[in-house]
Amino acid sequence: MTRTRHIAAVLFDEFEMLDLYGPLQMFSMHREAYQITTVARAPGPVRASGGPETVATCGFGDARGFDMLLVPGGAGTRRAIHDTELLNWLAVAGAQAEAVLSVCTGSALLAAAGLLDGRRATSNKRAFNWVAAHHPSVDWQTQARWVQDGSVYTSSGVSAGMDMALAVISTQIGPEAAADAALWAEYTPNTDPRNDPFAIEDQA
Amino acid sequence: MTRTRHIAAVLFDEFEMLDLYGPLQMFSMHREAYQITTVARAPGPVRASGGPETVATCGFGDARGFDMLLVPGGAGTRRAIHDTELLNWLAVAGAQAEAVLSVCTGSALLAAAGLLDGRRATSNKRAFNWVAAHHPSVDWQTQARWVQDGSVYTSSGVSAGMDMALAVISTQIGPEAAADAALWAEYTPNTDPRNDPFAIEDQA
Repeated sequence: MTRTRHIAAVLFDEFEMLDLYGPLQMFSMHREAYQITTVARAPGPVRASGGPETVATCGFGDARGFDMLLVPGGAGTRRAIHDTELLNWLAVAGAQAEAVLSVCTGSALLAAAGLLDGRRATSNKRAFNWVAAHHPSVDWQTQARWVQDGSVYTSSGVSAGMDMALAVISTQIGPEAAADAALWAEYTPNTDPRNDPFAIEDQA
Repeated sequence: MTRTRHIAAVLFDEFEMLDLYGPLQMFSMHREAYQITTVARAPGPVRASGGPETVATCGFGDARGFDMLLVPGGAGTRRAIHDTELLNWLAVAGAQAEAVLSVCTGSALLAAAGLLDGRRATSNKRAFNWVAAHHPSVDWQTQARWVQDGSVYTSSGVSAGMDMALAVISTQIGPEAAADAALWAEYTPNTDPRNDPFAIEDQA
């Protein structure tokens, strides 16, 4: 019997919808294994980039004891990267978590929180230079659907978060559980983290 | 210059997250062309299946004049299919809309609202029999990533909604606009509606 892992789904203004809901969709297929809590600066509605509001049920001050963090990217990262309350919470909660996951430019937030120092990581290839230039202490990967380095998983852009989430499910519960989630979602996953159809030239 | 189309994203308790947010992600890439409003029985938070609450900004009584409807599926369709207020609103709003879109078992709601009578349509292949058996007046397609019949688009399960949304964008704005949305999302779309990796045997 798999133990239940508690996921903090981190919200900030103008987060990217699919960055959050793609992985949550996959985790939600196994409810005995994953429980989802939305976390933000304060409880209440938080607007997605170009989309509806999602309700945060937990403020950073009360958000403790999570096994996993899920950090989306999106237009809002440009402001969130200066939000010291968010970054401080990420630093503490991320250091204690079994797994920290980011999607797209969410990796810029992990980097700003110090969670990627000396680690390999990736991001959306269409916003790569913005992310990489500001965080030279990270070993940025220009060709990766997602990257695992220890407890930290960073995925490429938007839809890549679904492939990363399935890889995490595969590791934590088993390959059949990941295949089941993909099948119900009628999703054909990319199971090879090095298979990156959107890779860019390494400019290092 | 493309005119702005107003999309009603329909919410009900226990809707499937990716059914809604997959297509919304794609439409949100072209904000000058698509404006999204969340619609439910009443304004306020609506819980996704296994996931967070999304805020409906508009109740059915005030929800008029939409160019497009997006109807998700999910566990909640089993109850929503008996919700006459929802079905009546779908029937009226759907008849007036330029395009009606459903994802996964959302097609059962379109069928129950009478919007699929005599039309070709599809649904999630893992829940196909439940959907098809209750609505014999629909020409259900067992092998289709999505189906367009006139103004009505129905997609297969969950992730298929993204492919359908990109096809709608391609038709309404142009292939380049669809390709742009997919590229930013780092999503490799299935552009052939007949290419259905999850097809089932026709049991008719």
